Amino acid sequence: MNDEKEIKSARERKLAKKKWKEEKLMKSLSKSLNESNDVETGPALKKIKSEGSSDVGPDSYKRRSTLSIAVPGSILDNAQSPELRTYLAGQIARAACIFQVDEVVVYDDLGEEESSHSDNEPQNEARPCCLQLARILQYLECPQYLRKHLFPLHKDLQFAGILNPLDAPHHFRQKDKTIYREGIVARRPVKPGRGSMVNVGLEKDVQINQVLQPGTRVTVKLNCDEYEDETSTGHSHKLRGEVVPPWQPRAHLDQYWGYHVRIANSMSAALSDCPFQGMYDLIIGTSDKGSKDIPAQLPSSDHILILFGGLQGLEMAVENNGGQLYKSVANDMTNLCDYYLNTCPKQGSRTIRTEEAILISLSVLTPKVVFKSGSFTLGASSES
Amino acid sequence: MNDEKEIKSARERKLAKKKWKEEKLMKSLSKSLNESNDVETGPALKKIKSEGSSDVGPDSYKRRSTLSIAVPGSILDNAQSPELRTYLAGQIARAACIFQVDEVVVYDDLGEEESSHSDNEPQNEARPCCLQLARILQYLECPQYLRKHLFPLHKDLQFAGILNPLDAPHHFRQKDKTIYREGIVARRPVKPGRGSMVNVGLEKDVQINQVLQPGTRVTVKLNCDEYEDETSTGHSHKLRGEVVPPWQPRAHLDQYWGYHVRIANSMSAALSDCPFQGMYDLIIGTSDKGSKDIPAQLPSSDHILILFGGLQGLEMAVENNGGQLYKSVANDMTNLCDYYLNTCPKQGSRTIRTEEAILISLSVLTPKVVFKSGSFTLGASSES
Repeated sequence: MNDEKEIKSARERKLAKKKWKEEKLMKSLSKSLNESNDVETGPALKKIKSEGSSDVGPDSYKRRSTLSIAVPGSILDNAQSPELRTYLAGQIARAACIFQVDEVVVYDDLGEEESSHSDNEPQNEARPCCLQLARILQYLECPQYLRKHLFPLHKDLQFAGILNPLDAPHHFRQKDKTIYREGIVARRPVKPGRGSMVNVGLEKDVQINQVLQPGTRVTVKLNCDEYEDETSTGHSHKLRGEVVPPWQPRAHLDQYWGYHVRIANSMSAALSDCPFQGMYDLIIGTSDKGSKDIPAQLPSSDHILILFGGLQGLEMAVENNGGQLYKSVANDMTNLCDYYLNTCPKQGSRTIRTEEAILISLSVLTPKVVFKSGSFTLGASSES
Repeated sequence: MNDEKEIKSARERKLAKKKWKEEKLMKSLSKSLNESNDVETGPALKKIKSEGSSDVGPDSYKRRSTLSIAVPGSILDNAQSPELRTYLAGQIARAACIFQVDEVVVYDDLGEEESSHSDNEPQNEARPCCLQLARILQYLECPQYLRKHLFPLHKDLQFAGILNPLDAPHHFRQKDKTIYREGIVARRPVKPGRGSMVNVGLEKDVQINQVLQPGTRVTVKLNCDEYEDETSTGHSHKLRGEVVPPWQPRAHLDQYWGYHVRIANSMSAALSDCPFQGMYDLIIGTSDKGSKDIPAQLPSSDHILILFGGLQGLEMAVENNGGQLYKSVANDMTNLCDYYLNTCPKQGSRTIRTEEAILISLSVLTPKVVFKSGSFTLGASSES
């Protein structure tokens, strides 16, 4: 009798796994047919989609490998004050920047039942904690000189003044001599036959090679000769530059160029809606219930996603995805992840907070990352 | 001429190194002649020194290996509000607990010149930031039920309410059945021929086998039979127990039992005043200027000390020790440390904050730790 039951439950698990994989495939197919549908928190936060440039857009990401992390927005609701809520979001941003993360996915781990929406709120709007975490992550990733243009006053950013800066390599000061700069298309009339003017944080705006929507955030490659002449002799030329895809500085100079933020309304959306060419080909779950056997080297991959749980852990995030299917997947997380790892096997505290787990897990895992393509590898393995 | 200069400077460095080592030896000698002279922030915070028990006291530490970290108190002065100052101290405490650190040394990295003491303050008092960091570390390490007895109201603890709990394994709730408990000797008269009563966080106090100064913090081993009977049948017996050294629970049960806090008025005091038998036999400095070559395994050691710098880095902390000697030592930190390591060689942010560096470095280093003696090893190496 017990044997029968076990066989039945094993069959159910197998079926659930199959259905899960099919669902992933379907999502990926429908995605390639439609346009990218990232949930963004506002038009101003959308990173460049310049039509003129030949290799700009999400497809361009196929040219390099990426590291993503997924973090539940609900961790903010566990903070003890609005200031600490903001500070916590800042800790996530800094951890992502320290480990050169390409994408931070803010996912909803609470599911529909626990939804805190009132009847007046729109149905498809993300949970407020997810929106706030995403907004603060984007705010910190944005170079200081662009913030006033891209981030209007908002209650989510009320305590932004206490945030520790990212000190990211693409956050330049005016005096820094650099080929690439992040900028915003200026809101002023464009002369016929000329390109738009872009504020890149220098004393003067830069004229680009195309006309773009004012207010768009762009990555600009400056015309080196004019720029050098301007800074060395003090002669005042008109600075020129061209709009390039945001991954170009990293590919050309091996310089970290910030992360992209995506909101996912469930764990399955976090996994399926990969903005890069193809899908995540290495998914790693982190949990104190995971295996203590950390592999000496991770399999060579293109797009890695590392999942972090919230207060209730990753299993609960999967269960809250809704439906019986996810309940059975949560029973064995290796259905979902290529690796399910405990990166701090001898923890002295009964709990590890998500902001701590990110630093710990990325310290342990990034030296073991091997990317298939791309001009850089993460971690120490390439050097030691 | 240049060659001569180089030879002279090499000779000077060699002499400085020799002098530094002699100084360390002298300190260690004079220490073994005198009593342990830890700088503590108050008598209430002193951990047990019970005369009756045969193996209680700092000497007992020879029985096991230890992991210490040294953190500059000045990092608190970089926080943007009193609440965040407190929160930062809490982050250090949680990092120490997660990695089962035995001792946190709070050192003064600013030196005498930058002293912020006013004329009214006593000369030998530690810097306020060091005192506050030490106090909050001790407050968080102390089980909740003892705090009101051991920590009187103090401005340093004004925002203690926002601190995340350590959730350490020796912080028991009343219902937890456990052999060892932390306690405080009750302030009530002892009957002739009987031992003191100790509050260990249970409904009733425990009678111990000796008379101790009221208010002393002690580790108590409960008489199991009486305790079991009490909790299972509900019969009200008098609970009995014996005072044991604070390291015993860890040695016997392999259970983390919190950290010891020490204030050091300079980097040299941090290194020399090791409270354990002998000296630190493995000193590791961490810095982005350190070597990216992390050894696969650290040499087998008894007492490991990992040094973290503050805003200005470890070199400045050594220079601020005072005198020409330390200036020359700071020029080559391998004079001071057995290893000088960069544990995050591909950092995407220009800076790593000390509270982040502790989590990152301990994640990278503890799996490589091998202890000579003791009943436990840290990290994953023993299991994988």
